Amino acid sequence: MTSRSDFDALLARIAPVDASLAAKAQAHLDNLTKPQGSLGRLEEMARRLYMIQGGQAPKADPAMIFTCAGDHGVAAEGVSLFPQEVTRQMVLNFVGGGAGINVLARQAGAELRVVDAGCAGGEFPKHPMLVQAKVMQGTANMAQGPAMTTEQCLQALMLGASLADTAASDGFRVLGTGDMGIANTTPSTALYCAYLGMAPVAVTGPGTGLSADGVARKAQVIERSMQVNAKALASGDPVEILAALGGCEIACLAGLILGAAANRMAVLVDGFISSAAFVAAWKISPAVLDYCFFSHASAEPGHQKIMRLVGASPLLDLGLRLGEGTGAALALTVLRAGAAIYNEMATFAQAGVSTSDA
Amino acid sequence: MTSRSDFDALLARIAPVDASLAAKAQAHLDNLTKPQGSLGRLEEMARRLYMIQGGQAPKADPAMIFTCAGDHGVAAEGVSLFPQEVTRQMVLNFVGGGAGINVLARQAGAELRVVDAGCAGGEFPKHPMLVQAKVMQGTANMAQGPAMTTEQCLQALMLGASLADTAASDGFRVLGTGDMGIANTTPSTALYCAYLGMAPVAVTGPGTGLSADGVARKAQVIERSMQVNAKALASGDPVEILAALGGCEIACLAGLILGAAANRMAVLVDGFISSAAFVAAWKISPAVLDYCFFSHASAEPGHQKIMRLVGASPLLDLGLRLGEGTGAALALTVLRAGAAIYNEMATFAQAGVSTSDA
Repeated sequence: MTSRSDFDALLARIAPVDASLAAKAQAHLDNLTKPQGSLGRLEEMARRLYMIQGGQAPKADPAMIFTCAGDHGVAAEGVSLFPQEVTRQMVLNFVGGGAGINVLARQAGAELRVVDAGCAGGEFPKHPMLVQAKVMQGTANMAQGPAMTTEQCLQALMLGASLADTAASDGFRVLGTGDMGIANTTPSTALYCAYLGMAPVAVTGPGTGLSADGVARKAQVIERSMQVNAKALASGDPVEILAALGGCEIACLAGLILGAAANRMAVLVDGFISSAAFVAAWKISPAVLDYCFFSHASAEPGHQKIMRLVGASPLLDLGLRLGEGTGAALALTVLRAGAAIYNEMATFAQAGVSTSDA
Repeated sequence: MTSRSDFDALLARIAPVDASLAAKAQAHLDNLTKPQGSLGRLEEMARRLYMIQGGQAPKADPAMIFTCAGDHGVAAEGVSLFPQEVTRQMVLNFVGGGAGINVLARQAGAELRVVDAGCAGGEFPKHPMLVQAKVMQGTANMAQGPAMTTEQCLQALMLGASLADTAASDGFRVLGTGDMGIANTTPSTALYCAYLGMAPVAVTGPGTGLSADGVARKAQVIERSMQVNAKALASGDPVEILAALGGCEIACLAGLILGAAANRMAVLVDGFISSAAFVAAWKISPAVLDYCFFSHASAEPGHQKIMRLVGASPLLDLGLRLGEGTGAALALTVLRAGAAIYNEMATFAQAGVSTSDA
């Protein structure tokens, strides 16, 4: 049994970064052989990593991406083009090394773990890359009642936090988030609506490729889910809202983000689904924002509006809408470049280069 | 002596890519285990690389970045915050390994060559990374007359083309462009105005950090340079315009782009200066567009407008304004990711994953 007190103990470990470190990091960056500020967001990455890591030389390695999978009862409402069995098939594809995230994690030099947080069906064959920690065999249909009980939601949150704890004790410095779950843009959109006060019609998008009619029906399903779960929403408790409208992989990712912050680790938040997990974590503990980098602007239409509401500016805009952590893997190379600039460039004095007249 | 006939022979080797290959590449991409089009611009990268490389499995490696350096007589007009000696000091910093491009080329797994295309002062000490091929010891002041003679400009163009030829025969598949030259946003801006019909006040920016007054004076210097060189501009000959308003490193980069296209190699075009070299190459031979990837949206204010005029959409937008090839190095990791997706992902059939109902 996961108790609220275990969860409260996790939250008590989370604190904002030391803001006074920013000026120290920038002073070093301004002394490197380049016009001040000319490396733009690479300098921002280095400065924030320096703050997250408590004033050490910033490091983006080693990094691990967690692709968390779960199924959704709401798939029965016909909100996705793909059949639910694809969640399970894709977990096997991840384990087999053939999915987009396998290729991009390899390219980025990140380790990959696949987490069964709540896939439909039984256990998977054992595999070293796979964490089998199924909270339930797919959530209940949120259009008819809460997707998870409070207890199940806390269990998924603590699963994510424990993954971060283990990664921290294994020496990982940066975590990436990723998701797999047929129909999971639907609960993610419902969470944005509930947490950020957005209207379903304003933020519902095509996911893997719905038609305009399909998008309209999906928005109605989200509207209905919010009505059915009105009591949880009215409670204002972010955990109750996550239980009502979330999913096991989304709650696991929210827990991963909370756990990363508790361990002073940086998190590369992937796209539309992962950002919903971020919003849940942020509503639970606002200080997590200090630890998060938003990897990319998802092609899912509502994402950019959501990023503005969060006050975030995604690093990349490459039209991605795959999830799995693919955007986080690409963004890792940018974060690593920022750290390398900080650590490896010569200063004006070292290189004998004249400074500007400004 | 470089003759126009040598140059014409180079241009005769440039042809557009085979457009019919696009559908073949996309059919393969659509068969991989992901919703169609969900990897956005990574798919575009893979598809274009496939076309450039004539229908082979796309490869972004090995890659080489050329950081081409030159000085500018127009620096005497006070258009830069940094003294002219910094060009030479930075070449030594490149050779010493301490500059931004050294760090980012290493991170990106690209080889780096530094080219003295026209720095002020004498020869540098020999170094394996350094190509010493000085066309002249800094250009003449374009505010008083042509920056280069036609002959000098053709020599710089053919220097760049010969670098591409050598890289091709050494097995390199992708080239990156980079620049170093105090004051070189001034000739670059003048070239944009001359080639694209833009007004100096509309496109002149702060470069390494000029004040608003400094930017206004710089725009006047560009205006004056265009008046002084009115005859070259009126000729409509892109080589004459490049001679009048360009610089040795800019012409060398234009030649590198022409040479890459002649060798069917992809080019990652860096930011503001490199894009001016691209525009020169594009005016000389429009087919070069097929071979170019625009690495990033420069923080220099006019760059995004220029990209729209070219019909290009830069891959990254990270607020960079350093040059040297730093944006090209970062973009190489995205290009490589596109190639890896194409070559390494499993198909639906291979992975036993169900396809969508669409």
